[in-house]
Amino acid sequence: MQHMNSEAQHDFDRRSFLQATAGTALLASGNSLFVSSLAAAENAQQADAASKLIVHTRISRNAEPQLDALVESWMTPVDQFYIRSHAPNPEIDRGSFRLQVVGQVERRLDLSLDDLKSGFTNVSAIATMTCAGNRRSEHSAVKPIKGVQWREGAIGNARWGGVRLSEVLKKAGLRDSAKHIWFDGLDKVDYRGGTIPFGSSIPIEKALADSKEMPGALLTTHMNEKPLTPDHGAPLRLVVPGYIGARSVKWLGRIVVSDRPSPNHYVATAYKLVEEGTKLEWAEGGPLYRYPLNSVICTPATGGKLKAGKATVTGYALPPGQAETTIARVGVSTNGGQTWTRANLTSAARQFCWQLWKAEVPVTPQTTDLMVKATDSRGHTQPATVNWNLKGYMFNAPHRVKVDVGG
Amino acid sequence: MQHMNSEAQHDFDRRSFLQATAGTALLASGNSLFVSSLAAAENAQQADAASKLIVHTRISRNAEPQLDALVESWMTPVDQFYIRSHAPNPEIDRGSFRLQVVGQVERRLDLSLDDLKSGFTNVSAIATMTCAGNRRSEHSAVKPIKGVQWREGAIGNARWGGVRLSEVLKKAGLRDSAKHIWFDGLDKVDYRGGTIPFGSSIPIEKALADSKEMPGALLTTHMNEKPLTPDHGAPLRLVVPGYIGARSVKWLGRIVVSDRPSPNHYVATAYKLVEEGTKLEWAEGGPLYRYPLNSVICTPATGGKLKAGKATVTGYALPPGQAETTIARVGVSTNGGQTWTRANLTSAARQFCWQLWKAEVPVTPQTTDLMVKATDSRGHTQPATVNWNLKGYMFNAPHRVKVDVGG
Repeated sequence: MQHMNSEAQHDFDRRSFLQATAGTALLASGNSLFVSSLAAAENAQQADAASKLIVHTRISRNAEPQLDALVESWMTPVDQFYIRSHAPNPEIDRGSFRLQVVGQVERRLDLSLDDLKSGFTNVSAIATMTCAGNRRSEHSAVKPIKGVQWREGAIGNARWGGVRLSEVLKKAGLRDSAKHIWFDGLDKVDYRGGTIPFGSSIPIEKALADSKEMPGALLTTHMNEKPLTPDHGAPLRLVVPGYIGARSVKWLGRIVVSDRPSPNHYVATAYKLVEEGTKLEWAEGGPLYRYPLNSVICTPATGGKLKAGKATVTGYALPPGQAETTIARVGVSTNGGQTWTRANLTSAARQFCWQLWKAEVPVTPQTTDLMVKATDSRGHTQPATVNWNLKGYMFNAPHRVKVDVGG
Repeated sequence: MQHMNSEAQHDFDRRSFLQATAGTALLASGNSLFVSSLAAAENAQQADAASKLIVHTRISRNAEPQLDALVESWMTPVDQFYIRSHAPNPEIDRGSFRLQVVGQVERRLDLSLDDLKSGFTNVSAIATMTCAGNRRSEHSAVKPIKGVQWREGAIGNARWGGVRLSEVLKKAGLRDSAKHIWFDGLDKVDYRGGTIPFGSSIPIEKALADSKEMPGALLTTHMNEKPLTPDHGAPLRLVVPGYIGARSVKWLGRIVVSDRPSPNHYVATAYKLVEEGTKLEWAEGGPLYRYPLNSVICTPATGGKLKAGKATVTGYALPPGQAETTIARVGVSTNGGQTWTRANLTSAARQFCWQLWKAEVPVTPQTTDLMVKATDSRGHTQPATVNWNLKGYMFNAPHRVKVDVGG
């Protein structure tokens, strides 16, 4: 699916639409609108034509891969990696770019890309990134939810290269009052008639939680050994292994060391589990940090036709974003969860990384759907049901795929 | 059960024990220790002798009623009301007592009990109080948890009399920066070699959430039309309808208006859902505020002998601490949840208040246990299972009672 389909057009981000109407051409296409800006959208179209992603929104770029392509390899190629943006990609000049480090520090830093590369240890780590809204469409099936209607592809596994956040913080010198680290992007998100940067925040304990093979957080310039693309936050992106993608700020421009979580909208209000969205509920809820234990069937696709006999089922399983936790087992059921066939885990077990799996299960013309469920190394299993929430986050009930088995 | 039983002695609070050893008599009693201080404990013994409660710890006073007594009336008599304390009852002189209101306010207040009574509207409201640790013993059955081993009786429903928190805050004048209200008790809880007050914090939206019949929060001097007793926080207790009991600070001495939640240990660290108790986990977790949907079978008791035929089952059901939410239905099962008999709700349905219920169910010699499950007016049902957590909070899976049915 190379172009925006009618469902994706329907989901076209209203905010981007309004933003794009100044200096854009509007083309009526069937019963929906197609908007392209002059320069930006031409670039975007070019990029999309080359990509294999399902595009949800085009100006604020949001897209995800087809599931069969997603599980072709444990390491996700950049052109198969989901893209999540809250604003159009900002234009950033690499030469004049500076990362600011301010707040509760002994000395403020103002770092060029060269300063980052030459002044700190260059490291890399493999970690899975996933959106808190992955599988949102399954929440929406219960009761419609606004926002990008993510299927099960808002996830990917990559090698992230850059420098340890902890090393930069140590250079700045943390004061005793330092408890949380804020991150602001250089993007401009429409908000209440103005714009704000997309922002995140992590506890200081996470920022400093370096282990031998896994930094607590990384300031990255590279993804899978190549420079970051604009869609993935070039020239500098924060990557927080184990946390929802929203904490890994793209186009990172500023780090603030503070005694409390960031007041940015995406920490203080969005990315929380609420039901009604009253001010009281937002105030009561804590920010989401870790992503949950999850698993998905990637092949066959929903509606797939199978032959009676043995069917091959593949997919991914994600351990929760808790240190030193991996997948213990994955089960596939052909009878609605009454019995489970244990899947083979076909990739390495590593903390903060997904695992791919494959199962051979018996199917008959009476088989109507396939179901998957994962258990982690701490003994936790995905919940049978997940409470609906207003923003459609953290869906991790067992995934079901309807199939059609011929005689 | 009028006296501390061996289980309660075993659970005896180590902190209180250490605190009590200066100037106390230690009496060996069987294989456990019984500690009584000179004056304080004599008073406590006197009070306990008159009470009908199961005493868990005696110096820091923690006790809960027998379940059959608990559901004798919708309004819980004070002598049947659970007691939760983190330190010995402080001695407070009513005449010199002052409530301080400080922080992000236009003017600091220093209010005597007479100032509170004469300067503000006197109001009262009925609300259910319950400890976040109610049913902790069911978490402990999965994996032992420290702390008071609450059964199902850490809950009660009372009329609370005093003045609206909002009215006092308005008199002080809230600055724009006011976002959270902190509350400090006059008790002295042992903490890291010193003492701290027990503290809580609520969002400003809750503090100001007055409706016609229900204040967002109350500064109370009375419980069931009588002056508060020392065990329940005399002379002044905060009561926050819908929130876990820990937010309703007893022996209230100070209110601080702030732009963030309180740094007090019982907000910043305790009363969160964590699994391991790492510093990172405490930092990631938000404070608990609302109590969850719950229900309990109060009669027959566990191990109760029944005659085959129709059995009468009674208990309580608690709607979650969300405004305008009540119990929609309660079901009792005699076959492990395969089928449910709808119970009669025998008391009024009101937000932030429990409801009592009664069911007649068929039992046979094959019936081994009874089970209850409640659904609220928003369509939520108690979860089938609850994740174990380090502090044993918020247990609300369906309650089961083993029974022995004769032929």
